[in-house]
Amino acid sequence: MTADKLDMFRERIRLVDDALGARLPSAATAPEKVHEAMRYAVLSGGKRLRPVALLAAAEALGRRPEAFFEAACAVELAHTASLILDDLPCMDNAALRRGRPCTHKEYGESTAILAAIALLSESFRLVARNACTLGNPENAAAAVALLDDALGPRGLVGGQELDLQLTGKDASLETVMRVHAQKAGALFVAAVRLPAVLAGADDDTGERLARFAAPVGLAFQITDDLIDTADPSEDAGKCTFVRLLGAEGAQSRVADLIDEAISAISPFGEGAEGLRQLASYVRNRQV
Amino acid sequence: MTADKLDMFRERIRLVDDALGARLPSAATAPEKVHEAMRYAVLSGGKRLRPVALLAAAEALGRRPEAFFEAACAVELAHTASLILDDLPCMDNAALRRGRPCTHKEYGESTAILAAIALLSESFRLVARNACTLGNPENAAAAVALLDDALGPRGLVGGQELDLQLTGKDASLETVMRVHAQKAGALFVAAVRLPAVLAGADDDTGERLARFAAPVGLAFQITDDLIDTADPSEDAGKCTFVRLLGAEGAQSRVADLIDEAISAISPFGEGAEGLRQLASYVRNRQV
Repeated sequence: MTADKLDMFRERIRLVDDALGARLPSAATAPEKVHEAMRYAVLSGGKRLRPVALLAAAEALGRRPEAFFEAACAVELAHTASLILDDLPCMDNAALRRGRPCTHKEYGESTAILAAIALLSESFRLVARNACTLGNPENAAAAVALLDDALGPRGLVGGQELDLQLTGKDASLETVMRVHAQKAGALFVAAVRLPAVLAGADDDTGERLARFAAPVGLAFQITDDLIDTADPSEDAGKCTFVRLLGAEGAQSRVADLIDEAISAISPFGEGAEGLRQLASYVRNRQV
Repeated sequence: MTADKLDMFRERIRLVDDALGARLPSAATAPEKVHEAMRYAVLSGGKRLRPVALLAAAEALGRRPEAFFEAACAVELAHTASLILDDLPCMDNAALRRGRPCTHKEYGESTAILAAIALLSESFRLVARNACTLGNPENAAAAVALLDDALGPRGLVGGQELDLQLTGKDASLETVMRVHAQKAGALFVAAVRLPAVLAGADDDTGERLARFAAPVGLAFQITDDLIDTADPSEDAGKCTFVRLLGAEGAQSRVADLIDEAISAISPFGEGAEGLRQLASYVRNRQV
């Protein structure tokens, strides 16, 4: 990635962080503990992959990314809610997230669940509102439906259920791919498609963005597995892409997926430079 | 209540039950267990108070109630999600709901939480879609915002957090009223206001419906406490309206609240007969 583009991504991440901080309710107002837990979970230095991808997709459509910040915040809030729930004792029973105690470890299980519900609920409000601020209020329902598809039984909820069923079992590559596609991929694809739906772009445009986002989301997960494998403190018992494909096979799969993604967006021309840079970042990431 | 009106309410409840059954995903499709848990929690013979009130509010606006079935289902799905979460071990740790094992007792905690998330997510989709089926897609965002207000930190999430903080403590009448207003009242008020928002009625109309719904919702909670107090198997240690007001005081408070509600909707005239009958039902209910 060129230094310019890297700076641009860093700037976007900073703007997203600012927008999230400004939109989240203050921990000084009631219910204080829930508000504090929401802020703790969201403002914890995430990569902001989904918002950054969403803003780049807006650019590919020839739109000003600034006009899509509500949707960018919405997908990050929904993603954070899913992480809070994933970490619960009855789910993955995690203690740490991003090097800090998980939300339920810090605030208790009930407050963590309530914070997740509040974040999810707010994410629907924000995507719907973004349709209005864009001047296209008639597209709010389609944006809400897209988010529901990504979060509900066809998306995250279904992927998490399947993941829990597979815990401790051997799974095929196909199954691991399906879990990923629903559990994490669906929301990434929705993030990239959202600007098209909000702007009222034609179905072909949305499809093209999805054909970009699905392989990039999968490649991101595989690189996550590669990075975790390099860290001997990570649990080696999990059925990861690296275990199924080998490290070299996984690397080469990442390269193929990124090529596939980049070729899907060639019709967007110059405007899609941000999406291409994002795909290159995923190919080359070491952290 | 006249026999006619009672029949009409029964018929509405049946239609709502049918609509819910038809809209919920089949337990024969993946993720089967989540779908089964969603159906188990929703199709369990609830009173359908929120959908019935929503349909009566639509009539008060001179609209066909049939045109608001998506919103009616949405508020019941959201309400059911809140009951699943309320019953969790980390919340009220309940074993039974409506005479059957709670959803987490029957399907496990993780599936219960995932089912609640799916129901909430679907409820946002349905209210937004109802704006479109009514021919007013531009009102979808306002309907979504109304539902978020009822569910988020200003509504259910905030009320539940406050309720958990008060567990085992003495609380004033004012505090118990605030918990109720957020935890249960907010979604009831939203249900009654939704037809006005979806139809694009003026703010005064929405306010009038809220001035009906808030006292009726509170009266319903007080009658719940009166009915529970009459049942010696119920926990007498809770800080209920009956403990704070005495049985007679609670009865007389219910009567005052219903009078207040009925007078708020007098400008609607004949069309508000359904709302008036609903208020009378709450005043006189024994179960």
